[in-house]
Amino acid sequence: MRKLCYVGIDLGGTTVKAVRLADDEVGVVERIPTLGRESPGRILDDIAHLVTKVAAGASIASVGIAMPGLVDPVTGSNSFAGNLRWRDVAVREELEKRLKVPVVAENDANAAALGEHSHGLTVGVSDFLFLSLGTGIGGGVFAGGHLLSGCRGAAGEIGHMILSPQGPRCSCGSNGCLEALAGGWAIIRDAQAAIKQGQETVLNRLAACGEPLDVKAVAEAARSNDAVAREIICRALFWLGLGVANAVNLLNPSLVVLGGGLSLMGDPLLEAVRDAVATYGMPTQRESVRIELSQLKDYAGVLGAVELARRSQII
Amino acid sequence: MRKLCYVGIDLGGTTVKAVRLADDEVGVVERIPTLGRESPGRILDDIAHLVTKVAAGASIASVGIAMPGLVDPVTGSNSFAGNLRWRDVAVREELEKRLKVPVVAENDANAAALGEHSHGLTVGVSDFLFLSLGTGIGGGVFAGGHLLSGCRGAAGEIGHMILSPQGPRCSCGSNGCLEALAGGWAIIRDAQAAIKQGQETVLNRLAACGEPLDVKAVAEAARSNDAVAREIICRALFWLGLGVANAVNLLNPSLVVLGGGLSLMGDPLLEAVRDAVATYGMPTQRESVRIELSQLKDYAGVLGAVELARRSQII
Repeated sequence: MRKLCYVGIDLGGTTVKAVRLADDEVGVVERIPTLGRESPGRILDDIAHLVTKVAAGASIASVGIAMPGLVDPVTGSNSFAGNLRWRDVAVREELEKRLKVPVVAENDANAAALGEHSHGLTVGVSDFLFLSLGTGIGGGVFAGGHLLSGCRGAAGEIGHMILSPQGPRCSCGSNGCLEALAGGWAIIRDAQAAIKQGQETVLNRLAACGEPLDVKAVAEAARSNDAVAREIICRALFWLGLGVANAVNLLNPSLVVLGGGLSLMGDPLLEAVRDAVATYGMPTQRESVRIELSQLKDYAGVLGAVELARRSQII
Repeated sequence: MRKLCYVGIDLGGTTVKAVRLADDEVGVVERIPTLGRESPGRILDDIAHLVTKVAAGASIASVGIAMPGLVDPVTGSNSFAGNLRWRDVAVREELEKRLKVPVVAENDANAAALGEHSHGLTVGVSDFLFLSLGTGIGGGVFAGGHLLSGCRGAAGEIGHMILSPQGPRCSCGSNGCLEALAGGWAIIRDAQAAIKQGQETVLNRLAACGEPLDVKAVAEAARSNDAVAREIICRALFWLGLGVANAVNLLNPSLVVLGGGLSLMGDPLLEAVRDAVATYGMPTQRESVRIELSQLKDYAGVLGAVELARRSQII
């Protein structure tokens, strides 16, 4: 009999990652680019090939896929998929047609929370909040040992908690959402505005050299004491801390894990969020919670996806 | 053999309510005043007598008690109990000593959510949010059919979601919490400030006549088109709607039930919250949620308490 395996896929705006789980061992993560292939059909073809490749000859018991936006827990179709600009793509059905194996789909931040729960800091932790801090801000909540999904699988949208109703416009149409105040795109928006206004900052030099103005560049300028960059980053971290404190008051988790690209900012991020929770948290909530950076780098999503595949076969 | 019963107690700042459940039938709710008896020992004596009275000769299987503030789920002791001004009172232990039966304790908003789940609008509903709108603002969350308690039983504190960091001081020490913007005490604070500033409003007449300036009076003045009262109520309802929308985005419930004294405001409250969720909710979240007023008046807490007692004996 052929060896059995599970495959996890993390479908992102720029990269598709895939990993195999066989004999309780997680394999090497493979990647292919998503960019430039805007037709869902082409990307789904690529994903099907990638699944077969990472399975490496083992028989696939099931596939789990993590993807941005809202994922219907019953149909596994993807409505409103942020960076991918997909709407109502029947991802589960399309992949099952190509692969002839069962597929389960989940929102990427929820999957990343599951990845933390199976391979990260929150193994054995019943009540925690995972934040995916990237271009946008997503969240996954575990409560009583289970992923909190809500009635239609859309729970965890901490990025669209409105903290400043008169604040900047968000991609969702509201104003002053956490994501519009502290997400990667908001930080870049503020940096671009500062350059446009002719403020004195090292960011001008970057822009003049044609170097990419990304969050990493702004964070580095802030670290080297550029006043403009510091203000942008401090403001974003203030709002992020406030959003986390609000969620901590509502959910009373024992752990908050900060993941996603922005978490590479490290200590300044960690300290800002810890300070905010100490300041704005209710007594019991702030005393019972730890705030940590994810140790899984950008693998939480794909590890959660493969765990999703594994669990779908047990239940 | 004597008939078995469960007794539920709702310990509030002004009243203690008690009810019996026997043969699947809920009895008449009895009340005694809490006011003027500030020693926890005296109040606990009163409660013990009340329990015996409502049991009406039946053998008490267990007692459930709902109380304000943070309730330790393991020890059943009450730390930080808002209006009661109790700190670290071992309520469960003290009542068990007096009654010689098992006692379970829960935060009043969480108990009220359980009351809604057993006797109110949310019977059979797995994912819902209950708001207790009174002097303060409390909340109880059901997720996947279970009361969301968090790691230390303190989940649901929607009243201390900070929505305006530069806003008015809250009783918890932070600024701009939902409760400090939209709770009963915030509405009265704003009305008193308007009178003190000599603004033209019918509220002046009330104050001059020595009539109580309560939320009901301000809401009635608003309904009769008093501009000052209208502004106070509209502002409070704006913030309340925003807080509910944020919680809806995070939790994706299928139902939000508005309970507590302020819910007697009726349609203006309901419409304001529905409008806010329609405006600020994410697509899936706003499409899948209904917003309703509690039908249990101020009985949700005591009904939840007796359900708590019943469940404690089943598990």
